[in-house]
Amino acid sequence: MYFAIFGKMKVDGNSYCSIWPDAIREDVVHVIDQRMLPHRFSVADLRNIDEMCTAIRDMWVRGAPLIGAGAAWGMYLATFEGSFQHDTTGTLNKAYRDLMDTRPTAVNLLWALEEARNAVKGLSGKDVIRSALRKNAEKICSADIAVNRSIGESGLPLLEAIAERKKGGVVQILTHCNAGWLATVDYGTATAPIYLAHAKNIPLHVYVSETRPRNQGAHLTAWELLQEGIPHTLIADNASGYLMQSGRVDIVLVGTDRTTRNGDVVNKTGTYLKALAAKANHIPFYVALPSTSIDSARHVPLADIPIEERDADEVKYVLGLAEDGLQKVLICPPETPASNFAFDITPSEYISGLITERGLCEASEQALSAMFGI
Amino acid sequence: MYFAIFGKMKVDGNSYCSIWPDAIREDVVHVIDQRMLPHRFSVADLRNIDEMCTAIRDMWVRGAPLIGAGAAWGMYLATFEGSFQHDTTGTLNKAYRDLMDTRPTAVNLLWALEEARNAVKGLSGKDVIRSALRKNAEKICSADIAVNRSIGESGLPLLEAIAERKKGGVVQILTHCNAGWLATVDYGTATAPIYLAHAKNIPLHVYVSETRPRNQGAHLTAWELLQEGIPHTLIADNASGYLMQSGRVDIVLVGTDRTTRNGDVVNKTGTYLKALAAKANHIPFYVALPSTSIDSARHVPLADIPIEERDADEVKYVLGLAEDGLQKVLICPPETPASNFAFDITPSEYISGLITERGLCEASEQALSAMFGI
Repeated sequence: MYFAIFGKMKVDGNSYCSIWPDAIREDVVHVIDQRMLPHRFSVADLRNIDEMCTAIRDMWVRGAPLIGAGAAWGMYLATFEGSFQHDTTGTLNKAYRDLMDTRPTAVNLLWALEEARNAVKGLSGKDVIRSALRKNAEKICSADIAVNRSIGESGLPLLEAIAERKKGGVVQILTHCNAGWLATVDYGTATAPIYLAHAKNIPLHVYVSETRPRNQGAHLTAWELLQEGIPHTLIADNASGYLMQSGRVDIVLVGTDRTTRNGDVVNKTGTYLKALAAKANHIPFYVALPSTSIDSARHVPLADIPIEERDADEVKYVLGLAEDGLQKVLICPPETPASNFAFDITPSEYISGLITERGLCEASEQALSAMFGI
Repeated sequence: MYFAIFGKMKVDGNSYCSIWPDAIREDVVHVIDQRMLPHRFSVADLRNIDEMCTAIRDMWVRGAPLIGAGAAWGMYLATFEGSFQHDTTGTLNKAYRDLMDTRPTAVNLLWALEEARNAVKGLSGKDVIRSALRKNAEKICSADIAVNRSIGESGLPLLEAIAERKKGGVVQILTHCNAGWLATVDYGTATAPIYLAHAKNIPLHVYVSETRPRNQGAHLTAWELLQEGIPHTLIADNASGYLMQSGRVDIVLVGTDRTTRNGDVVNKTGTYLKALAAKANHIPFYVALPSTSIDSARHVPLADIPIEERDADEVKYVLGLAEDGLQKVLICPPETPASNFAFDITPSEYISGLITERGLCEASEQALSAMFGI
């Protein structure tokens, strides 16, 4: 079972995944508290549904797949509430609503909560329900790991082919944001082929785009790669164009938050600029995704895709380690307003291919329909 | 004369330019110390050649035109050295070398020093030489102001045409880095048309790209626009693509550090990504430049253009205002390496036009040759 082992990824040489139940105390779930990374690694003990809601809302955990996993474990934790003993249904309904309210736009959150609801449908007996919710959470976590592992296997041949073409020269990869194991339960999406290639001793190097405004590349992806001993270099987001035009990048690998049925990709702001530069310089640009990220809605015009606008302070302030601990510093005049669209849209014409758990797929409606029957 | 008046640009409602001689003490030159902006405005008194060298080397002043002006004033300050009285030539030669060593790659620095050398050629008498060096510095500053004003007049019709097309709607401008008055003596290059349009009450709004890694957009351009009362919004560099694809930008205006004779533009890293997004979304992309930025060397392949690689710590650390003053904060694991190419290259095919002191010019060898005879 998933929960009986630690994950495959390394932290200070020990194996970890991003979320797991305590081995002994059955009312405790552990998560890596990602808010302080890379400067402080800490594991949080979540002891009840409220603490799980806080962890999701305040982004101790983030990344659509991990949020889904957290919600599933949250439903399990709800069975340890005092009220569960006398009002089983009411307690679970409240837990569902509270979890749903934490990050209302995350598709995986709704999906995981529905899975939990379906898992207990028709069941009675408190122990039976608790056990079913635990099994559901384990299943969601195991499935996430398996899907990411498959994404890794789908993408691995791309890196192997480059290594072969370069006759053992270093495969130069550019990535953006964190589509790593910290955004999932284990392996990550865009990072999965990288981790598998590294395990096969394919020489590779990753340019990590810092990913302003929240710097998930600098905070999380650089940390992941460092922990795995994978050579990498941090760059300003602005530098990705010059790296590509000067021939320093062999392939771009990114994740996605939503893939439209015709193969356009909604991902962290800045992805589109990298896709433009890749196309202009004939560099393959691949997007790694679990099929759960595919939005099956028909023909949404790009202009109608909702793009989350986040707090302006994420642009005006930068979080980092000062001499006396973590600090947020203001980088502009206090009176200057800022805008903060968190995502952009990369049209399918700029995408060389999608890396999915079922294999490589052209970024087109026909190909997605043929592979996933949507 | 230039030095008898303050500049046209505003700081806290008072008129300033970026460098000027003291009105009474003839051995003092003032500059705005740009290192602490936007958080602290301070004027430095430079009292000798060594202090001017420090101001250029440590980037109290920056921007190619302003560096040139600083060098010219530095040569003038050298005439107050004690050694100037008994070794005029030796003192000036040493000042030339010391200034040249401050920022050896800045083209304008060499140009301004040569202007100073030519200004005193064949002259004798210490007062005559001092007076000639002062006149040379004044001339360089006056010429810079006049050129920038002309660039503004060349670019103004572009903004007027957009305002007319939008029937008085707000002209939405996107800029990058600081090609503002702080990079020159007054007006700036890319900002000159903006300041003239604002003075003519054309409604406009500027998206200011923060310009990682050094954040000149957030630190300097936002501050300039705030001081002039021009509506503006800070954005993460990554967000420029979404702003353009969602129709929020009417025109992109940037500066340049070097323009090749066939119209390619070397400018602050990230410029190329904006040009790609502008082209893909049919948005005009203009580069403002004094003709002194044109590199007349024939047919340098893009791959042979030297791109300055700066200190990795500029990527790993961010400077900003913390609760207890200015701080640099680390944004990645300390062991993570970073690379820091400071410029990129925007090929002429992505450039709608060049805005010069002689008017608009196509970004091509033929057009540049016809306009500037190079």
